[in-house]
Amino acid sequence: MAAKKVLITGAAGSIGTQMRTLLKDRYDLRLLDRRPVPEPEGEAMICDLADLQGLERACAGIDAAVHLAGDPSGGAGWEALLEDNVKGTYNLFEAARRQGVKRIVFASTNHVTGFYEMEKTYTTPEMLARPDSLYGVSKAFGEDLGRFFVDEYGMAVICLRIGSFQPEEAVKNRGGDRILSTWLSPRDCAQLVWRGIEAEAVKYGIFYGISGNERAYWDTQNARQLLGYAPEDDAERFA
Amino acid sequence: MAAKKVLITGAAGSIGTQMRTLLKDRYDLRLLDRRPVPEPEGEAMICDLADLQGLERACAGIDAAVHLAGDPSGGAGWEALLEDNVKGTYNLFEAARRQGVKRIVFASTNHVTGFYEMEKTYTTPEMLARPDSLYGVSKAFGEDLGRFFVDEYGMAVICLRIGSFQPEEAVKNRGGDRILSTWLSPRDCAQLVWRGIEAEAVKYGIFYGISGNERAYWDTQNARQLLGYAPEDDAERFA
Repeated sequence: MAAKKVLITGAAGSIGTQMRTLLKDRYDLRLLDRRPVPEPEGEAMICDLADLQGLERACAGIDAAVHLAGDPSGGAGWEALLEDNVKGTYNLFEAARRQGVKRIVFASTNHVTGFYEMEKTYTTPEMLARPDSLYGVSKAFGEDLGRFFVDEYGMAVICLRIGSFQPEEAVKNRGGDRILSTWLSPRDCAQLVWRGIEAEAVKYGIFYGISGNERAYWDTQNARQLLGYAPEDDAERFA
Repeated sequence: MAAKKVLITGAAGSIGTQMRTLLKDRYDLRLLDRRPVPEPEGEAMICDLADLQGLERACAGIDAAVHLAGDPSGGAGWEALLEDNVKGTYNLFEAARRQGVKRIVFASTNHVTGFYEMEKTYTTPEMLARPDSLYGVSKAFGEDLGRFFVDEYGMAVICLRIGSFQPEEAVKNRGGDRILSTWLSPRDCAQLVWRGIEAEAVKYGIFYGISGNERAYWDTQNARQLLGYAPEDDAERFA
């Protein structure tokens, strides 16, 4: 069977760069970013999320899209979040729909529920959003939009609430202990992404994206049960 | 004690027109719309939700804002929803924050969870969003944004998921039976609004806005318990 054709947006970003390296043997990749993608592992495209027609071209013939592009946590103001995370995510989802892409893995964030963490509340994906930032609000929007595309158009959307995506070095050299709870290693992230692509029975879901951390306070049970996620890392070995 | 100063946005709209009539004796009203407000029951302002500075002027000296402005269900495409419901709601919340407005009653919609209704699932405010339209997605955004403003800035936001807001005549002359479950009479809507303004202990909440309909399939228990909502109408008398 031919490898699935997978689009990665934000392919030049920090998560995108790791994902394309870790997924290149499994999938036939198309790599999109608004900056040039250095040393691309497949066809590369420069396209801004504001460009709906460009996104449609990027989605043509694609089996699954991994939507990592957007403003990352911290720093970004409302105008940038509105443009890139709200409007940009809509454009990507809509382009995918128009081109018949059946499945999207959407990079959401733990910041959708960040205020539970501040109150030291163990958090599950069934709890209502409590964003800790406009960034978190913008990603909550993407999750709700995804739910609509699933229910209305029969697409599949897997929302990964990415934790602290960092290489091992960052855990070793950490400034505080939070990352022992929230770490997501690159290979566990890649596993969540490919399991999200392969879990055909799952049409929609919200999954916390963290490694198998002993000190986790976000519930990953549904990722294990529904996606078959079996994390290889646990930040505890750096404790 | 002097009457509270209450801003109503969308005051020339169908709900706004009823609310200002029904609330004019209780509050000192300031009425905002992008169209002229006919026969205003208080100070009237013409202002678009795109105009953050205008909204700040509208919020100056206000005790509570009732945010009804926005694109109503049906018809509106993504561009209009993005402008009026996403960006416009952000602008109103932000203007309120900057001007020290402590409380917002936000007109959300039952369409935030419309897909449960399609599956005939009894729905409570604790369930995750399942929007049935981009309109529903845009209002889910407002609810999440409100949650953030509450947690981050200590404001209070009361989200009313308005049902079928209609005069009695519309229930009598109904085309189908849905409205027997989803009706919100103007006076019950006004009660929810003023109870939302007066319920000082409630900092955030999502409440279905319907009358005391015997055939209701949206849970209004929290409105009764937390806001003291005691609906006067029940669509059943028109069955």
